[in-house]
Amino acid sequence: MKAMIHVTLKPGVLDPQGKAVQHALGSLGFNGVDEVRQGKYIEIDLDESDATKAEAQVEDMCKQLLSNTVIEDYSIEIAD
Amino acid sequence: MKAMIHVTLKPGVLDPQGKAVQHALGSLGFNGVDEVRQGKYIEIDLDESDATKAEAQVEDMCKQLLSNTVIEDYSIEIAD
Repeated sequence: MKAMIHVTLKPGVLDPQGKAVQHALGSLGFNGVDEVRQGKYIEIDLDESDATKAEAQVEDMCKQLLSNTVIEDYSIEIAD
Repeated sequence: MKAMIHVTLKPGVLDPQGKAVQHALGSLGFNGVDEVRQGKYIEIDLDESDATKAEAQVEDMCKQLLSNTVIEDYSIEIAD
């Protein structure tokens, strides 16, 4: 199975990387950009063939390693 | 409009960050992880209200700033 994980900063947490991108877009002449938020996207190939078990395993991975749950949210999608 | 952008390394391009995550997962006792690839996820709030124009604008952003098209692919989703 394949897991697709998005890790994003929680709303209200300052995102300096996003701000830097926003300023850079402005410098390049892109107007009308209200906000930029940058997160991580992780794809994991798993041996596990049961979707429910795979999701539980990936949830543990997110809590233990892939995200900092104090300041970040994560979402998981499982596909074949 | 809101644009959601995924920037991922092209297939075949070495992903040391993904490899590091894979090894760390192994150290934490997660077995059965075949491959990990890490990319970027960017959300942009745009003033533009026309989806086609917004997508064209974001495509330009990806080419000029958000991705390195030599080694990275990007995909764009536009939502209200």
